[in-house]
Amino acid sequence: MTVHVLWYVFLSGALALATAAVFSRLVSRIPVGQGQVTDAQKSKLEEISGAIAEGSMAFLNREYRVIAVFMAIFAIVVVALVDWTSALSFLAGAGISVLAGFIGMKAATRGNVRTTAAAMQSVAAAFRVALNSGAVMGFAMVGLVLVGLGLMYLILSAILSTQSPQHVMEALAGFGLGGSSIALFARVGGGIYTKAADVGADLVGKIEENIPEDDPRNPAVIADNVGDNVGDIAGMGADLFGSVAESTCAALVIGAVAFATDTQALLYPMLITAVGAPIALVSTFFARTGSERGIAPALKRALIVSSVLMAVAMWFVTMNVLPPAFDFYGAHYTALGVYYCFLAGLVAGLLIGIVTEFFTSHRYRPVQDVARAAETGPATNIIYGIALGYRSSLIPVLLIAITIFVGYFFAGMYGIAIASLGMLGTVAVALTIDGFGPVSDNAGGIAEMAGLGEAVRKRTDALDSAGNTTAAIGKGFAIGSAALTALALFSAFLVRSNVHSLDLLQPMVIAFLFIGALLPFVFTAMTLKSVGKAALAMIKEVRRQFATIPGLRDAYQLTQASLDKLKAGGMSRERLTRLHSILDKHYPSEEKLLAAVRELLVRYPPAVPDDQIKAVINEGVVKGKPDYRACVDISTRASLREMILPGAQVILTPIVVGGLFGAEALAGLLAGSMAAGVVLAISSANSGGAWDNAKKWIETGKLGGKGSDTHKAAVVGDTVGDPFKDTSGPSLNILIKLQAIISLVFAPFFAHMSALLH
Amino acid sequence: MTVHVLWYVFLSGALALATAAVFSRLVSRIPVGQGQVTDAQKSKLEEISGAIAEGSMAFLNREYRVIAVFMAIFAIVVVALVDWTSALSFLAGAGISVLAGFIGMKAATRGNVRTTAAAMQSVAAAFRVALNSGAVMGFAMVGLVLVGLGLMYLILSAILSTQSPQHVMEALAGFGLGGSSIALFARVGGGIYTKAADVGADLVGKIEENIPEDDPRNPAVIADNVGDNVGDIAGMGADLFGSVAESTCAALVIGAVAFATDTQALLYPMLITAVGAPIALVSTFFARTGSERGIAPALKRALIVSSVLMAVAMWFVTMNVLPPAFDFYGAHYTALGVYYCFLAGLVAGLLIGIVTEFFTSHRYRPVQDVARAAETGPATNIIYGIALGYRSSLIPVLLIAITIFVGYFFAGMYGIAIASLGMLGTVAVALTIDGFGPVSDNAGGIAEMAGLGEAVRKRTDALDSAGNTTAAIGKGFAIGSAALTALALFSAFLVRSNVHSLDLLQPMVIAFLFIGALLPFVFTAMTLKSVGKAALAMIKEVRRQFATIPGLRDAYQLTQASLDKLKAGGMSRERLTRLHSILDKHYPSEEKLLAAVRELLVRYPPAVPDDQIKAVINEGVVKGKPDYRACVDISTRASLREMILPGAQVILTPIVVGGLFGAEALAGLLAGSMAAGVVLAISSANSGGAWDNAKKWIETGKLGGKGSDTHKAAVVGDTVGDPFKDTSGPSLNILIKLQAIISLVFAPFFAHMSALLH
Repeated sequence: MTVHVLWYVFLSGALALATAAVFSRLVSRIPVGQGQVTDAQKSKLEEISGAIAEGSMAFLNREYRVIAVFMAIFAIVVVALVDWTSALSFLAGAGISVLAGFIGMKAATRGNVRTTAAAMQSVAAAFRVALNSGAVMGFAMVGLVLVGLGLMYLILSAILSTQSPQHVMEALAGFGLGGSSIALFARVGGGIYTKAADVGADLVGKIEENIPEDDPRNPAVIADNVGDNVGDIAGMGADLFGSVAESTCAALVIGAVAFATDTQALLYPMLITAVGAPIALVSTFFARTGSERGIAPALKRALIVSSVLMAVAMWFVTMNVLPPAFDFYGAHYTALGVYYCFLAGLVAGLLIGIVTEFFTSHRYRPVQDVARAAETGPATNIIYGIALGYRSSLIPVLLIAITIFVGYFFAGMYGIAIASLGMLGTVAVALTIDGFGPVSDNAGGIAEMAGLGEAVRKRTDALDSAGNTTAAIGKGFAIGSAALTALALFSAFLVRSNVHSLDLLQPMVIAFLFIGALLPFVFTAMTLKSVGKAALAMIKEVRRQFATIPGLRDAYQLTQASLDKLKAGGMSRERLTRLHSILDKHYPSEEKLLAAVRELLVRYPPAVPDDQIKAVINEGVVKGKPDYRACVDISTRASLREMILPGAQVILTPIVVGGLFGAEALAGLLAGSMAAGVVLAISSANSGGAWDNAKKWIETGKLGGKGSDTHKAAVVGDTVGDPFKDTSGPSLNILIKLQAIISLVFAPFFAHMSALLH
Repeated sequence: MTVHVLWYVFLSGALALATAAVFSRLVSRIPVGQGQVTDAQKSKLEEISGAIAEGSMAFLNREYRVIAVFMAIFAIVVVALVDWTSALSFLAGAGISVLAGFIGMKAATRGNVRTTAAAMQSVAAAFRVALNSGAVMGFAMVGLVLVGLGLMYLILSAILSTQSPQHVMEALAGFGLGGSSIALFARVGGGIYTKAADVGADLVGKIEENIPEDDPRNPAVIADNVGDNVGDIAGMGADLFGSVAESTCAALVIGAVAFATDTQALLYPMLITAVGAPIALVSTFFARTGSERGIAPALKRALIVSSVLMAVAMWFVTMNVLPPAFDFYGAHYTALGVYYCFLAGLVAGLLIGIVTEFFTSHRYRPVQDVARAAETGPATNIIYGIALGYRSSLIPVLLIAITIFVGYFFAGMYGIAIASLGMLGTVAVALTIDGFGPVSDNAGGIAEMAGLGEAVRKRTDALDSAGNTTAAIGKGFAIGSAALTALALFSAFLVRSNVHSLDLLQPMVIAFLFIGALLPFVFTAMTLKSVGKAALAMIKEVRRQFATIPGLRDAYQLTQASLDKLKAGGMSRERLTRLHSILDKHYPSEEKLLAAVRELLVRYPPAVPDDQIKAVINEGVVKGKPDYRACVDISTRASLREMILPGAQVILTPIVVGGLFGAEALAGLLAGSMAAGVVLAISSANSGGAWDNAKKWIETGKLGGKGSDTHKAAVVGDTVGDPFKDTSGPSLNILIKLQAIISLVFAPFFAHMSALLH
């Protein structure tokens, strides 16, 4: 019967990987130069998307090198303080998460330009390409988690064959630690990267140099597009990879107490994700649309279908795999009760997504109120946005509290872990939808840079806008599951530490509860500062390029030699002046420059033959080429350097506190961190999302539209919100999870130190 | 021996009240029209200060009416759900807090104009008047707490003579509830009042109408000055009154378990404040200075002297009053241990003040960095300010955690309550210094409005600036003591509920821990919204007055009849045009208008005799008088209306949660609220303070000075920070304390409900 469950896990994992491979092929086989594309456009498309892909891989390569060093050192620490089997699964978890991230990034950087190409045909085609690109990440991640966990379980069982299943599961927890460590790099490092590039591109490009967004003359524009992938694809993927791996490990560790002899029931937690994979595949078929308005509903449909199917399927699985009734630390629970825990998590996840959308979409009142507050200036816009974020955490936190209560009530600590896996039951679909966003965003940027025209841009904008809506759902989902995952790990940590009641009236516990509540705030302050520093480095580089690269500011400028030639050719003074004034303007493409010159030639009668002028212009135009790579490099270096401090806080705090003050003090710290961290994470994400969409709502022509004072005030809010929603907020997910998994893995070390100190 | 301790409490209380009376007389006997004041200036001074006093009293009167209704209803609730003795001490506590607030406000509204008058002589004289005005509040408050608590103890002992001392102390806890309820009105209502008036005055006056700050033409200017008193005098006074009353009650309730038979030791907590009063009197003599630079050091000197003397005196008192060793819930503690608890609180309070000053004064790096961030616009200014606030909570929270640990370690739950009283040991001096601030601020405003000239304004500015520095210390102090007070009440609540260990692994406890952490955020969102609504009402009123009151915008305008008269008198067209252009400008005083007209008469040769013109102008000038009272009324009504929702949250949450889910769930909620609330309160206050002082630093001529783009960006930060530092931040003190004292007082109701439900 054991074989049966594990076989199913491997089968489902293989299916998910095969699905990812098929989607990847579906995307790749679309030619970049399709249909009405000119050769010039095709080479432009290839050039731009090549630069983005190159930048993304450059970031990954450098990040992987840093990660390799970190992993080696941390593995040694684990071996020294815990044991080598935990270190082994740590390395496996980290390695597999890196692989999942790599596959996702490859798919996204291939999918973006193909979405642009497909958008030249129809919305439906572009939608499919973007969705398929996202699906590669979603299914690859789920497949790799399943296969990885299953294999590691087999390996550890073989190595630790003389030990209890609990020992095996405790060693397996290292897998979650590995996944979460990579998430630290991806979320914190990626979050710093994306905002440094974004702020750098906006502040110098849009404000100082007054060139439009996604303009190819902006040296940071590629880094900005790379940032979308780094932050939203690699970051979100690693975050949810960590959640799934950690929740599963937590459930396995806790469950090992109850199901020591029943291996089928023991592996039940792995089955939840295994059941989810084929259901996710079915659900994606429901995400089809032909119209621009149908995009967001199609994405949501897939998520809801997936949830409903999961709810049904898991009833059968739970009732068949788990014993009808079982005992756990003296309490009596039932399989049906465990199913309720699963269901509570699943439903809470969906509801949190809906609430998040309500508070961050400009179709609803809250965001519109924030926009209206911008009418009295940036200050009121900011105050309303902060208040919205704080308020928006009410229902999600109540939902999490109810889920915690339901979980505990029906299956004790095990119930929390199962509720967490329930929330992650639709993770493949959630990741697919989430990957859709940055691919569409990139596709729009590429269309703009390649000068593909209004119609194409309109289609990619529709995709991007739908992606924004569903991104909000994904973010709420990521935070909610992080909270439950952290709590599941917290429970597993207490089980492993033999702490069966945690007295809040113990001085150490209450004192560290206060310190724990402090950590998310200090961490946020650090990540905000990191973004600031990295952005400053980027701003300097962009300014340097605009100042030193000839012809960059205007993209197309006549060389002095060409002008001299024209003058010598007998061009009139008036015409020459006109020519200069034309060249003083900005031209996003060479074509447009030539069109302007042609108009000049018609208006001012020729003193020089047209063809001669054209020839001179054609040969003499300086096409100022920005050094994209330098910007990508700056963002890469700065983000990896600036993540050291916040990263060190997250990793060292639990080890130091647990080592010096013991497991109970650490438990108080974790409780405080989780409670305050969840609220801060939700409010950071939602304030940021609300400011962003308030600005976008105004840009649709409301309250004076683009360029009005109200819009300017809203831009301030948007800029404030950026690091909160894309760096510090999502990074808090990692803070609460990583602290908890470190506690779980290092529990034996704390016990050892405690014995040593007392 | 009992008589001995209580006698001392009454004696010290009487001394404090006498001191307050003497300081009050010292202030009152200073004539408003002193020395070089002209009759016109004197009547102006009297008019303005009269309006402020009238506005302040109007607010108090209306607030008291609302409070009376609230107290009557809430007293009935307490009688119904708890017992009538608790209701009795609730009414006593509330009544005495109201009295303390009234005395403080009277002193402040008398002191402000006399500080202005004294500033015409010297800084030293003005400093003394402002300090003495603040001292009235400080000493009256401490005296009333001591006498009130002492009397209530005697009364309750007589009524409950058959009951145990524990019962008496539990009934006495109602006194703390009364004090804290008034603090709710004073802090939340006062906080909304002061910011509505401030924002209304600034947004319409400074920005729309372009008239300077504190200009008498601004209809909201009196409300703004009233707001300073309402927020900083009544608000801070009631807040700290609540802290002292509550901490004392908490210590008495907990101590009754250990010292049931030793009445001397039982009343030890009251002695701490009683020892503080004479020491505070001595310390004020150290606050003397003759120079502008010496003001802030003089204030700090008083605080440090008070701390040192307290540390010494309390050693003798503790060792003599408490038994050398005693048992408490099975643990063994010593008098020396209790002294350490006291000392930990005292030192932590002082250190928190110092850290707060470091993060909010523009003499140090953090605020200067926030100012520099304004160079790249308002968004970076906001981000840096928020990060500063989060970061600044690190050391204060660590200090609180250490104090908690020390308290618990040396004397269990009793130690926490004593540490809290230790932090409040210097409360009379702290309140004196704190009252100094708004009095100086008001004095500056009055000097400006009365047009007393540069020299006087410079002196009051120096006082105001020092007041700002020490206000930061006071705020940190208020938050720190609120945290410890709340924890002491939390402990007393658990003692009263017979909860001797609070298992965080109980589903209810952990679920409510999350919900508890949420409350400060939701509360902040509500208070921010309240400020927004109240400010909007004020803005509308100010706009209405500027639009409808003739001559208000320019303060002095010729009537049409006067102009016709001049024209008929043969005034030349050119001269008439000139006259009009002069009258189009703003004149802060009638004198300046006449000076301008005189200049006109010299430049343009007369066609009408000078005296005739003068006569016409003199009789025909419309002095547009703003309706100050309407603005005061709007702020008063709006603030009292808008505090209903946040107030209801604070009061109802513990009663509902405790009633429905029991004491342990409520304890989880309180723990979460305290942990998250303290961090949010500190960061709100410090972010706001930093933005304020970053702006002021720029106004001293740094980074481009007043009027530069950097300054404009800093003004945005200042406006964002205002409601955080003056409304939502300080209101969080009330949230955590009031929730805890309600839990303590209603504990029997929860037990009753629990028995009913199970």
